[in-house]
Amino acid sequence: MRDYVLRGNLCYSADMDHIETRAHAYLVCLDGRCAGVFDQLPARYAQLPLADFGDRLILPGMTDLHVHAPQFAFRGLGMDMELLEWLNTYTFPEESKYRELDYAGRAYSSFVQHLRRSETTRAVIFATIHVPATELLMQKLEDAGLCSYVGKVNMNRNCPDYLREDSTVQAVRDTRRWIEETKDRFTRTRPIITPRFIPSCTDDLMYALRDLREEYDLPVQSHLSENYSEIAWIRELCPRAKHYGDAYDQFGLFGGGYPCIMAHCVHSNEDEQALIRQRGVFIAHSPESNINLASGVAPVNQFLDNGLRVGLATDIAGGSHESMLRATMHAIQASKLRWRLYDQNVKPLSFERAFYLATMGGGAFFGKVGSFLDGFELDAVVLDDGTLDHPQALSVRARLERAVYLADERNITAKFVAGERLF
Amino acid sequence: MRDYVLRGNLCYSADMDHIETRAHAYLVCLDGRCAGVFDQLPARYAQLPLADFGDRLILPGMTDLHVHAPQFAFRGLGMDMELLEWLNTYTFPEESKYRELDYAGRAYSSFVQHLRRSETTRAVIFATIHVPATELLMQKLEDAGLCSYVGKVNMNRNCPDYLREDSTVQAVRDTRRWIEETKDRFTRTRPIITPRFIPSCTDDLMYALRDLREEYDLPVQSHLSENYSEIAWIRELCPRAKHYGDAYDQFGLFGGGYPCIMAHCVHSNEDEQALIRQRGVFIAHSPESNINLASGVAPVNQFLDNGLRVGLATDIAGGSHESMLRATMHAIQASKLRWRLYDQNVKPLSFERAFYLATMGGGAFFGKVGSFLDGFELDAVVLDDGTLDHPQALSVRARLERAVYLADERNITAKFVAGERLF
Repeated sequence: MRDYVLRGNLCYSADMDHIETRAHAYLVCLDGRCAGVFDQLPARYAQLPLADFGDRLILPGMTDLHVHAPQFAFRGLGMDMELLEWLNTYTFPEESKYRELDYAGRAYSSFVQHLRRSETTRAVIFATIHVPATELLMQKLEDAGLCSYVGKVNMNRNCPDYLREDSTVQAVRDTRRWIEETKDRFTRTRPIITPRFIPSCTDDLMYALRDLREEYDLPVQSHLSENYSEIAWIRELCPRAKHYGDAYDQFGLFGGGYPCIMAHCVHSNEDEQALIRQRGVFIAHSPESNINLASGVAPVNQFLDNGLRVGLATDIAGGSHESMLRATMHAIQASKLRWRLYDQNVKPLSFERAFYLATMGGGAFFGKVGSFLDGFELDAVVLDDGTLDHPQALSVRARLERAVYLADERNITAKFVAGERLF
Repeated sequence: MRDYVLRGNLCYSADMDHIETRAHAYLVCLDGRCAGVFDQLPARYAQLPLADFGDRLILPGMTDLHVHAPQFAFRGLGMDMELLEWLNTYTFPEESKYRELDYAGRAYSSFVQHLRRSETTRAVIFATIHVPATELLMQKLEDAGLCSYVGKVNMNRNCPDYLREDSTVQAVRDTRRWIEETKDRFTRTRPIITPRFIPSCTDDLMYALRDLREEYDLPVQSHLSENYSEIAWIRELCPRAKHYGDAYDQFGLFGGGYPCIMAHCVHSNEDEQALIRQRGVFIAHSPESNINLASGVAPVNQFLDNGLRVGLATDIAGGSHESMLRATMHAIQASKLRWRLYDQNVKPLSFERAFYLATMGGGAFFGKVGSFLDGFELDAVVLDDGTLDHPQALSVRARLERAVYLADERNITAKFVAGERLF
């Protein structure tokens, strides 16, 4: 059942500066893709099944471009440290538990259930170093009907023994096995090469991951320029690199001919931004995480003005919440404080641009995803904002803005991913 | 029924840097006040009725020290402007609707219902210039069982005709009538003198409000040093004042011998802070509002270190949400960005201090309120965090921190205000 019509108050980005709002309009879906928005349903579609959502809002599904599934267990905790201390104190001990498949099963079930109920239709996910737990996570995501890339994490230095891959040979053997076992197993869930970040991978592991990436033609995700201490560390570890991004590039893990996501880019300088643009690397902007870990705020408007590819991310558990609506709020809020407190040359994010980041911006990593323009895969979230009561008449545009600040998963009453209805 | 015992996981501030957490402990309430926390219930209290909340968290009720009830209708909207433009574009048109009692009734019912369900037990509230609507709001708050101060707003210049008090004589006559009609009418709801802010009140109105305040011995609330343009305007309007706070002081409306709240104080300089301290003025720190209107971030830790009195506020509709848990999150987050982006001399707020602000800090405006220490009025919120699932064991302290980031009104299963159980 991939041909049908949705009716409701449609809200979607036409481009990064324009949101289309069409009250009580029809969205035609043919073979799982958007095939037109109409005020009156054309006669040629009159025979298609119609799901009429009345006065509800219908938005494109949102893409969470960077989220750590095993950190969901401690979301909202340990917000009193910066990145490197936080990793050692909270993150690594928690991630080590995923060697136990029983624990992983309980924790990942919770994560996937929350994600399924949320406005997220697609996600790019870090797991842990553990192959069985990572495969279990992939199976659960597939079963939930979400579209995702999932990375078995690689890390073999500067981390505790209990969470370190034994050797590069062993790491490559495990990673190859995981790729072989998962690359053709699912329809919506795909592997992605995932070095945690340069400090936790030896040079030979990085080169080996580059070779695996080429061999299997996989995308890549990692972290970039999140925190000042991290960046200083990179200067020690990679003295020949012009900047942190250049270090990934020298390892052959910075996009170019293949898709690549770098999370954060809070402190990327001009040269690094130029290389990000040149290589077509996606930036996963993670505003709440960058606030909670006191990393700073990336100059997102500058990225967009300069043609960089940017999406939005929750970055759980740096971020506390799986909600991409909340991430949209945080993106706007963080940009305002960056402007007020730090740099008046980069204006705050408009609502239009923040909504674009959460939908089309990150969706682009998956292809034509994140809008209701013709040809886009149909990812949609139906939002009943009736509980967000108000005494006055409100436009659809106003209701959309309120939803970003006030709605939660209770307001999501239906969800479609790649043309399939989840609930 | 004002003598009873509560049992559960008690969390409360002992002082601004220490949170007591007592697992499965007993809180004795005598005549509506806290009379001891015990791991084992003493025999002398064994006959009191016991409400056993099992494994739930029990926190002190929270005090919202600054919130605009008529702005609840447009919460989450119009976040694209700074203060003065925002007032003229969104706020004043909305507030003018409260001359219609029918509209006010619908809008205030919604506000009060949300507040009743929230973790807020006490609030200090701006209404509008309209006496009948303000009295209606007070009645609804009283009926809901909340404790509050409510201000009929005064404003007679620099505002649109449709929301301007006709003359100082008329403003004083209306205000006096409102005070007479409300000062002894309720048990939990009291009037507070409320000049909107200096730009919207003529000098003679300010002096008249000072006289009314003295005559009826009432507290005062207003706004202070929120936004750069506002502060520049004050310099023009009050050329003889050393600073904004001094201008209020010259009008006799800056505390001293009586309780006074000033919202924001984002940009209060050293002299202004010294006068705030000297006069014992409460600062209503409104982090989300100060972010949304791009005002900046007040140096809250500096205020606390210097002995200023500070509470937390949602400042709806500068803030989008009535939740004081969310305000607590925003206070921590804003302080981190202020530290990272602007001033490394003022450290981020600890979780302890943010929780203190939301409970004891603002509660102090109402007397001994906001903790479970002996003699404090019993305001309590019972929080069932069972839906915030996690696969690992968590301490009570950890569960409290998570609740700030993740809980909402669904998690609040019981509420006590001044010794009375609301639900």
